[in-house]
Amino acid sequence: MRFTRQTDYALRVLMFLGLRPAGELSTIREIADRYGISENHLMKVVHRLGQEGLIETVRGRQGGIRLAVAPERIPLGDTVRRFEEDMRIVECFDPATNTCAIAPVCALSGILHEALGGFMAVLDRYTLRDLLQPCGALARVLLPDGEPADSGARAR
Amino acid sequence: MRFTRQTDYALRVLMFLGLRPAGELSTIREIADRYGISENHLMKVVHRLGQEGLIETVRGRQGGIRLAVAPERIPLGDTVRRFEEDMRIVECFDPATNTCAIAPVCALSGILHEALGGFMAVLDRYTLRDLLQPCGALARVLLPDGEPADSGARAR
Repeated sequence: MRFTRQTDYALRVLMFLGLRPAGELSTIREIADRYGISENHLMKVVHRLGQEGLIETVRGRQGGIRLAVAPERIPLGDTVRRFEEDMRIVECFDPATNTCAIAPVCALSGILHEALGGFMAVLDRYTLRDLLQPCGALARVLLPDGEPADSGARAR
Repeated sequence: MRFTRQTDYALRVLMFLGLRPAGELSTIREIADRYGISENHLMKVVHRLGQEGLIETVRGRQGGIRLAVAPERIPLGDTVRRFEEDMRIVECFDPATNTCAIAPVCALSGILHEALGGFMAVLDRYTLRDLLQPCGALARVLLPDGEPADSGARAR
């Protein structure tokens, strides 16, 4: 039971951008470098984050990406729901592809939906802001110059 | 975010056996047929269910498998914990294989552990017994002769 890479990377990109001072631009290469992951994999995620209105792109030589929304307005539950395309704990969660013969009379599906509700209810209590604590330690690991994360947070 | 096939099939086997009258044997072929899944895939799961002490095997021509424990003594949370080998919502859940640079200072991991706790807490409230309701409807779909499931349940 794990998130797709897309969800995992979406959260990482948001955290990186959330640490930067408000308005400052970052590049995909920079983010890929800091996490040690492939730029190609990040491209698709960044595109999707843009479509979802969570980040904005400035084009051109000095261009880059930045948050389009303040961290406290990015709920984790909502973000995971948008990105995690495969929330099918078991195959009958998707009637279109289900092959399990007992689906119409099976009580497991209802219990697993309830359990998934318990999972999401926890995520719904947090926003990106909560992931930026402790800002200082995170900024030191993630940002090239270890700039204090809170400067960006305060500016919003 | 989905269970491995092993966990899914383990739950299906337990449900099938739980519907049978206490002590009666079923074969892997029978279970595979009723769910429309591969016998080969079931073999490993059945072996593992035996190792976990949840089912017992009777060898020989008239042999088969049956529950070794009453359905109300098989908690779903416990079963999922035993079978779901990949509970790594994100890669840092396993320090041995983690590559994410921010793991030591990242708040996401704690929040996801809390969310996973919310998921498992729901499963901990149910046992295999709860999956056998409504017994009649389930038995009609799953058992060859649609025998009333409750006969087995009462006998335990």
